[in-house]
Amino acid sequence: MPSEFDLIRRYFTRPATHTDLSIGDDAALIGTAPGAQLAITTDTLVAGTHFFPDAAPCGLGWKTLAVNLSDLAAMGAQPRWATLALTLPGIDEDWIAAFADGFFDCAGRYGVDIVGGDTTRGPLAMTVTLFGETPAGAAITRSGGKPGDELWVSGQPGLAALGLAHLQGRIRLADASRALAALHHPTPRIEPGLALRGLAHAMIDISDGLAGDLGHLCERSGLGATLDAIALPMAALCETGVDKALARQYLLAGGDDYELLFAAPPSVRGNIEALAHRLGLPFTRIGHFAARAGPIQLREADGSKHTVKASGYDHFPA
Amino acid sequence: MPSEFDLIRRYFTRPATHTDLSIGDDAALIGTAPGAQLAITTDTLVAGTHFFPDAAPCGLGWKTLAVNLSDLAAMGAQPRWATLALTLPGIDEDWIAAFADGFFDCAGRYGVDIVGGDTTRGPLAMTVTLFGETPAGAAITRSGGKPGDELWVSGQPGLAALGLAHLQGRIRLADASRALAALHHPTPRIEPGLALRGLAHAMIDISDGLAGDLGHLCERSGLGATLDAIALPMAALCETGVDKALARQYLLAGGDDYELLFAAPPSVRGNIEALAHRLGLPFTRIGHFAARAGPIQLREADGSKHTVKASGYDHFPA
Repeated sequence: MPSEFDLIRRYFTRPATHTDLSIGDDAALIGTAPGAQLAITTDTLVAGTHFFPDAAPCGLGWKTLAVNLSDLAAMGAQPRWATLALTLPGIDEDWIAAFADGFFDCAGRYGVDIVGGDTTRGPLAMTVTLFGETPAGAAITRSGGKPGDELWVSGQPGLAALGLAHLQGRIRLADASRALAALHHPTPRIEPGLALRGLAHAMIDISDGLAGDLGHLCERSGLGATLDAIALPMAALCETGVDKALARQYLLAGGDDYELLFAAPPSVRGNIEALAHRLGLPFTRIGHFAARAGPIQLREADGSKHTVKASGYDHFPA
Repeated sequence: MPSEFDLIRRYFTRPATHTDLSIGDDAALIGTAPGAQLAITTDTLVAGTHFFPDAAPCGLGWKTLAVNLSDLAAMGAQPRWATLALTLPGIDEDWIAAFADGFFDCAGRYGVDIVGGDTTRGPLAMTVTLFGETPAGAAITRSGGKPGDELWVSGQPGLAALGLAHLQGRIRLADASRALAALHHPTPRIEPGLALRGLAHAMIDISDGLAGDLGHLCERSGLGATLDAIALPMAALCETGVDKALARQYLLAGGDDYELLFAAPPSVRGNIEALAHRLGLPFTRIGHFAARAGPIQLREADGSKHTVKASGYDHFPA
């Protein structure tokens, strides 16, 4: 049976392209660009909480890194380095090789050097800590929203949650393919995030669900918001076969989506539409920030308004 | 019951002193000193593998950060920032408060800002990723050893492993107090590590045991080594009441020690002795690097030599 050191050497040591000293010492050494800020984020996936214990390891490897990349995308940061702490119940070399394939597939796609890690024995879990760079002052935080900014969301929120509900047998989708792809193989919106520097005032990824993460954006920016029901992107949800009421529920409250929600002034609406066209990714204008602090309201097609509960996904619900 | 967001706010958000944007956004933002390299390390502690599930949470909080600090100490890096990923089986606020106390006690002692984290539900485990700074080119790696360099070790290796064996009932110590302190409340050798910049050619912390980690130092420096049995620091081990043969075994093979093992030229012997005196920490000269690659040999008092197996602590033994 291979040792921990053999495992790391065999599966998790790949050539680094922009790292001064990589895996194999007490710590890695990196140099950041002059004047850059470093953006740092960390996320853990635990078997049984975040994924099924029998999830395909290749997809899991991809997703482990992708969910962290999504946080950097939401800052408008360029991904550069990551560490991986992997806790395994034992050695299954086929599983490890497939996990590493998925993980490095994602790392290669987004230009991330893996600079360190730890392999331990215990219940299956993985923690990635990811570092990106932005020019100083260029990062897009949650708190920069201005009164009257328009609210935009990328792609199709709600799909991943539909996929999960389908797998759990809570709903039955006529066509689950796109929903399962969103769940198992999320695309972190790195290029859109970088391109929105200088356009978006505030941004967040909606891993806790659209309404919940809009709540975070509102809280940090000190503003209320209005969403227009008629503007919400529903097409891809309805194509799965669910009815409209359920689709809206998943769109607003579903977690595990890695789309971007951002606020930008009306003056750059044309730029954002041009950007969406260039990237081949829909950006949908779904509402706007209010003039002051307040609740999140949903305006129906008939003009009536009601308040949306901004409760994000919570691992420890009350 | 408090939510994940409440938990983070209540227990894990403390004022940051050198961080541009701390907990509360998609990522933290930091700026590094001009010309600095960043040293990065990560370590996971898993209940049942690295600590007893009923371990006192305050000590566990300290140790979670301390084991990572030890890796930065071994690079001669100044600790600056950390993230904490904490997986909890449920909410026990007393436990969390005590854990946070120990963790921030250690962070405060060594000047670390906690800039991010993730709180998830699952089997108890914690992963820290830690960042430190060194002037470019000043870090002390494992690979810089030169033929004839003298080998030094700080403090008393073997104590923590004695403490663990005592707790597990495998041995019975007459006086377990220092051994248990070494196990539960390790002191990362940050100040010694920083002070050894410019003196030590190569350095490692001996968390996998003295012989195993000397093996890593030898391998990376491309050199064999000789240890002098008569020079090995045994006093604190023997004071626990174990016999000499057992003490030596723990000294060479015991893991979970966070002392520094380093190689330095004979010309700086006086500087190192003066440094030990200034720091109030014993540095013991235990041997030297050979002229070329080769095994680790132990030279007994009578001049006879035998090879020491350089097998480090391994979570997945063959």
